[in-house]
This record gives sequence, C-alpha cells and structure tokens, in this order.
Amino acid sequence: MKNYEIIIVGAGPAGLQAGIHTARRKHTVLILGKLEASALWNAHIENYFGVPGKVLGSELLKVGLAQAQGFGAEFLEEDVVKIEKVETGFLVETETGKSFQSLALILAMGVKKKKKVFKDEDKFVGKGVSYCVDCDAWFYRGKRVAVIGDGSAALHGAQTLTKFAEKVYLIPLRDVLIPIEETEKIEVIGKKPLEIVGENEVSGLKFEDGETISVDGIFIEIGAKGPLELLSPLGIELDPQSFSYVKVSQRMETNVPGVFACGDLTGPPLQVAKAVGEGCVAGIAASDYVKSLKGKG
Amino acid sequence: MKNYEIIIVGAGPAGLQAGIHTARRKHTVLILGKLEASALWNAHIENYFGVPGKVLGSELLKVGLAQAQGFGAEFLEEDVVKIEKVETGFLVETETGKSFQSLALILAMGVKKKKKVFKDEDKFVGKGVSYCVDCDAWFYRGKRVAVIGDGSAALHGAQTLTKFAEKVYLIPLRDVLIPIEETEKIEVIGKKPLEIVGENEVSGLKFEDGETISVDGIFIEIGAKGPLELLSPLGIELDPQSFSYVKVSQRMETNVPGVFACGDLTGPPLQVAKAVGEGCVAGIAASDYVKSLKGKG
Repeated sequence: MKNYEIIIVGAGPAGLQAGIHTARRKHTVLILGKLEASALWNAHIENYFGVPGKVLGSELLKVGLAQAQGFGAEFLEEDVVKIEKVETGFLVETETGKSFQSLALILAMGVKKKKKVFKDEDKFVGKGVSYCVDCDAWFYRGKRVAVIGDGSAALHGAQTLTKFAEKVYLIPLRDVLIPIEETEKIEVIGKKPLEIVGENEVSGLKFEDGETISVDGIFIEIGAKGPLELLSPLGIELDPQSFSYVKVSQRMETNVPGVFACGDLTGPPLQVAKAVGEGCVAGIAASDYVKSLKGKG
Repeated sequence: MKNYEIIIVGAGPAGLQAGIHTARRKHTVLILGKLEASALWNAHIENYFGVPGKVLGSELLKVGLAQAQGFGAEFLEEDVVKIEKVETGFLVETETGKSFQSLALILAMGVKKKKKVFKDEDKFVGKGVSYCVDCDAWFYRGKRVAVIGDGSAALHGAQTLTKFAEKVYLIPLRDVLIPIEETEKIEVIGKKPLEIVGENEVSGLKFEDGETISVDGIFIEIGAKGPLELLSPLGIELDPQSFSYVKVSQRMETNVPGVFACGDLTGPPLQVAKAVGEGCVAGIAASDYVKSLKGKG
C-alpha cells in the first residue's frame, strides 16, 4: 500500500486545482477519480476568467490534469469506494481494490445529480426526504419510514432502518423480487409511488391507486453510492441548511481535522470558478496542515 | 450621473470574474479601476486551472476584461476615490470627479502592499500599528500616538488624531517643512525613526539618535489611499484577526447589506484562483441581492 501526504478524491476543477497547488508545494499527492465524472466534462464554458470563447469542459479538465501532473501529482483514474480514518491518517480504497493512505484528504467529488422520483422532492430534502440511510437513520427512531428503490442500497437501507424505525416500507420502483423477509416491522409494497404528502414536512406517501400511507421519512435509494454516503464513516458534518453539502470553514476545513472539502460538494453556486477558488484554498490549507504535522510549519 | 444595478470597484481577477457573472445575468454593470493596479499585472501565472504554461498576468487580465465586456459590462479605467452610502444604494466617485450610483457594490480592489517603514512593523499591525486614521483613531482616545509621513494624509491624520489622543507626534520621513502649527497637543519631531518599541503591543518609538518616546499607537501614513481607508465611510467590518482584510460571509457578503467583497481584499491566500472563485460567488450573491430588491427574486 502506497502512502502519500495528500490524497485528493475527485478529478474535477476543484480537485485538479487542489492538485496543482499541493504538488507545486512539493507534497506527494495522489488524485483519484474520473475526469468524465466531473459535471464540467460535458459543459461548454464561457464564464471562466481568462479562458475566452466557448470552451469544452473536457478540454479544460485535460489541461488541468496535465498541469497537476506537471508539478508532480500522481493520478489514478479509478473511483473511490471507501474512505476510513486510520491511526496515521486516512485510508482510501478504489473500485479495483487498491488501497492508499494519506496524512490529509481533500474531498472534491462533486455532487451527484440523482434522477428525481417525485416532482417536488427537492423541497422536502432535510424535511423528511433523505438520500443517505447511514447519515439520517438515527433521526427516525420510533418513527415510520419508506425506502424507495430496488438495488442493494435500498435493501440494506431498509434493513438498517429496522434498527431505528418502528415501521419500514420498502417500495421497489421496478417489478423485481426483493430478497427480503417481511416481518412485523418491514413490509414490501409493490405499487408505484405517486407523490409525497405533507405541508412543510413529509407526512405520508401516496400511491398511483390513491392509497396513502403515513410516514415521517422517505429514503430514496435509487442510485450509485453518492459522495455523502462515502463520507459517512468519517463523521463529516453536513451543512445544516440543506443536508446535501459538506460544511466547511473559510479555509475549506471540514469538522474532521485533516479533511478538507471543495467544489460542488460544499454547495452552490455550482460553478467552475467557485470550484477552482475553493480547490486553491483547500490545497493550501491541506499543505499547511501536513507541514504542521511534520513540524515544518 | 449614471445609475447601474451593480458597480464593481477593482479590475483584477476577482472584479472581472464578478463582472462576467453579473453581466451574463443581464444586470447593468460598471467596472471601475485599472488593470495595471492588479497584483496579477506583473505576475507570471502557472498555477491556475485550465490555463497551461507560464502566462503573463497582464494577458489574463486583458482577456478577462474582454469577457466581461462581451457580456455587456461597462468599464471605466479610473481609480475610485470616494464611496458613500446614499438613500437608494451607493455613490462612487472617481479620480476625475465622475460620479455613479448603484444598488449593489462589489469591492475587489485588492490589497496595497505598502513599503515598510520598520522591519518588524507587520507583527504590530492591529497591536498599535495602523494604516488608517479614520478607521482606528477612536481606539486612541486619551492616549499618545505618533503619525509617520509627510504628505497630506499624514498631516490630516495628525489633525484628526488631536480630537482623540492626548498627545500626537508628527514625524516626517523626509526633510520637509510641515505646514502645521505646533500646540501643546501636537509636536513635530524632525528625526529619523529607527524602530518600534514593545513586546506584544506598541509601547514606544525609538529614533536614530537613541531617544525613545512613549506612544500607544503608531499611524503610518506614507502612501496613497489604501482600500481600507476608502471603505471607512461605509462602516465595513474588518477581519478581527488581522484588521487588514474585509470580513465576509461564505456568500462574500460584508456586514453592510448590498456590499460584497472578494479577492485579495478578503485575505489570504492571495492567489488568482481564490480571487476568481470569490469573484464568482460575490457576483452571483450581488445579482441575487439586486433581484430581491426589485422583487424579481
């Protein structure tokens, strides 16, 4: 297992700018992620200072990666599937099972735009709608919840929730056999959900046939692992306004010492310029952190 | 007098990025300042995402200005000498006496690196050393202060300070006749100052001939008007850590509604990428502010 001073998770504009700054300060740096995963990849950019005309995002990303590598940053084009705190810092595992350790971590994996299940789902986020069982199950102790989805995330989510909630409805979106044993606590409903019921907070869920069930929470588990789920083992604090973004200080520090976040992951505006600015600040802060650990700072 | 929705003071990377974002959102925008005044002008940049190689700062600035103008921002290459709050927003006056009004203001004039008078002057900033009589005179009520400099700033500074301090020493650096009447309160010392006396705070000032005077504050008034002096009529709050930078929220709001700040003016790291990121955030926040005023938001 290879060790680095700084590992950067995410190869969009924030991660690459952080890579440029940290590598240029002579740290050993590994950037993990896929350029194509950046929201910038398919965009046409014309509002980024110093880069005139309409430029393809993919071009900017390739240039940015070459800049970071030019200063000595290493790059591995693999997704991160696991991040853990270990005694000497952080342990990161990629999709092919490779492991790396670092003293500091810069999180720059963006936000995953999930396909919506409900039209007005957004207005209930943090008010009963959640995308992360690990993050939010605790809030539903003794309450009634629904889990929507049919993959392993939904299945495991429902099982986890049985430890907290009084009642868990599992609602597959497709016509699939859910390999789960129904109990008094867990019930599979094979009908298409139509809309969220509630004024300011979720109070129920209505199905296509008109039936409504009473629930306090709706967990939507339809996609790949989102960035926030990846972070839950670290105990990273989220922005209390949205619960969709990582909370950072003006130096891009998270609540966990040694972990910095930047780019879309920290919230709007979701813009290249903002991501780049935060990548710069996070890179310099992470560099200062590593230097202070090593007694050089 | 012409009115704009948004006036941007400063034409460095932060101001120009703010110009790009606000003009692209169809606001009427005026950018005031000189490209050459930006710290970027004479720099060679190689650490800015998406712009490879070593690029001349002046080139980047010209490109950035063309981008902002391309979206409809107006540009006047004049320094701002006065900013005031007025009933309908803000009033800005330039060096040639032109006046403009706006609903919102984006401050992006950078920081002025002043030539130091004393080697260890920096460590006393906010601890007795000040560069802004208007900002700090109040803290020296009933105390003893020195004003260093020989221009009108020093002269007027000393006169202002007589209203607050018990004793004001005026210390010209060059051999000039200071047109000021000495009184019991104000005394001109025609000797070269050598060093600041004090442990953590200023306690005195030592001259080349070995004589030491006891003072609580030293006002250094040797340069052109710095950005912070320009801001003092607005009552803009400074960062309590340094007193050298403007305090902003994560949306780049200052304490004064409608006034946003970005770039070097908000503090380190003094980097193009950070300035650009903050310019983007400030531009979008100012746009939202103007829309909310107009009841469109």
